[in-house]
Amino acid sequence: MQNPRIKDLLALQEKSRLRKERGLFVVEGLREIQHCIEGGYIIKEIFHNPSIISEEKLLQMFPDGAGSSVTIASVNDYVYEKIGYRGSTEGAIAIVEARELSLDSLGDIFDGKRAPFIIVTEEVEKPGNIGALLRTADACGADAVIICNPLTDIYNPNIIRSSLGGVFTNRIAICSSTQAIQWLKKNGVSIYTAQLQDSVPYYDADFTAPTAIVLGSEAKGLSPEWREASDRKIIIPMLGRIDSLNVSISAAVLCYEVVRQRINADTL
Amino acid sequence: MQNPRIKDLLALQEKSRLRKERGLFVVEGLREIQHCIEGGYIIKEIFHNPSIISEEKLLQMFPDGAGSSVTIASVNDYVYEKIGYRGSTEGAIAIVEARELSLDSLGDIFDGKRAPFIIVTEEVEKPGNIGALLRTADACGADAVIICNPLTDIYNPNIIRSSLGGVFTNRIAICSSTQAIQWLKKNGVSIYTAQLQDSVPYYDADFTAPTAIVLGSEAKGLSPEWREASDRKIIIPMLGRIDSLNVSISAAVLCYEVVRQRINADTL
Repeated sequence: MQNPRIKDLLALQEKSRLRKERGLFVVEGLREIQHCIEGGYIIKEIFHNPSIISEEKLLQMFPDGAGSSVTIASVNDYVYEKIGYRGSTEGAIAIVEARELSLDSLGDIFDGKRAPFIIVTEEVEKPGNIGALLRTADACGADAVIICNPLTDIYNPNIIRSSLGGVFTNRIAICSSTQAIQWLKKNGVSIYTAQLQDSVPYYDADFTAPTAIVLGSEAKGLSPEWREASDRKIIIPMLGRIDSLNVSISAAVLCYEVVRQRINADTL
Repeated sequence: MQNPRIKDLLALQEKSRLRKERGLFVVEGLREIQHCIEGGYIIKEIFHNPSIISEEKLLQMFPDGAGSSVTIASVNDYVYEKIGYRGSTEGAIAIVEARELSLDSLGDIFDGKRAPFIIVTEEVEKPGNIGALLRTADACGADAVIICNPLTDIYNPNIIRSSLGGVFTNRIAICSSTQAIQWLKKNGVSIYTAQLQDSVPYYDADFTAPTAIVLGSEAKGLSPEWREASDRKIIIPMLGRIDSLNVSISAAVLCYEVVRQRINADTL
């Protein structure tokens, strides 16, 4: 594995610090790369195993010839097996330019007629949970996901993999809890915090106005800052003997109640 | 690691075939062992690290002196680290007698006044998904979970771990799809199959009568057998660009709609 470009790719997969320094990250899989291109990301380089995916097929993913500026390198089975973090079956890995994901970039979600629906997380720890949440955010048609005080960079390979491309299909902002609260308040978005204390069952809340559903970390829940900023504290009733749900599961239950209410009220 | 009992424990963790032959399985963690005892399982032996959990604390888990028939062995940090599949922090691992989990054992869920609510899976592959589903089944107060044509034994350590004890708090039956369909039909339970074709949005279905929510495998969905047996085909609307949800996430969205409807109708 002497090829410096291959070494570079492996280092970008492994090291969060390097991804940040270089402003680059790695995406594997044809479908994920496709979501990435459709999400407006700039692909720098693609390594592919031609016995799985042809160069022609890669170029078809790009709109009108935009693929011509991308460096495409073919690698053999042996090399692909070394670089593929999802095994050897995907056949394509890209190096992509990272983006500044700021709150400012979300401004236009208030331009449309519909009341914005935003999902917020604070200090969620596991990349797999953030990825699953992004997959759900895409599925339920959320307008944006705000990730507060993250413990992992958003371009972590495990987040990208478990989101099935949701990192690229969602509008995402990354900021502090303080910034998110100020921004939501300024824009008139109601803050619904998922928490155990002083809360009402989630299906008794009205999610048809501009809504932010806020979920805390697996271990600690939400910070006092969010609890104080909350307009309505909501809970998912736990009817058995286990006292919690996985954070990505909770998010899905709450977000699909938003969808249900808005479809019923004909405001989706 | 010469101690034959420790070797036995490790073999039971690793080998599904051995678990089946011996009728034994392994549970780690105080809370999980507690759920196991409360679920009526018979604990054969507990290995604990006394620097983390005392023998006294272990015995407190059992109702009136029932712990006296359990073999308790203390192990040191080094040995615990070898046997603990969740790292070294839990401090207790038990060997437990497996149970026959048959449909017949669920008969009494029809004795109460409330309309039974049953979750069914067919050929779900990933232990983590089955575990997450069992955790959700506990949370939403399902009366039973029927696992059809399983690809993993229910006492797989990854199922137990990801269920957070839900393997023990739920009523579970394991059988073929054919047996489950016959049993549900015989008992007048409506079959709601989660599938993409010919389906209505799940919130338009009525879940207040006796209800079985049926979910298929990650890769293949449900078999033709279930599709034919279905009373109502339901779908979770996918409003983004990714075309599917994780099976344990889908289950949670559907099951909490059952809860919501029944609370609204005052039939929970």
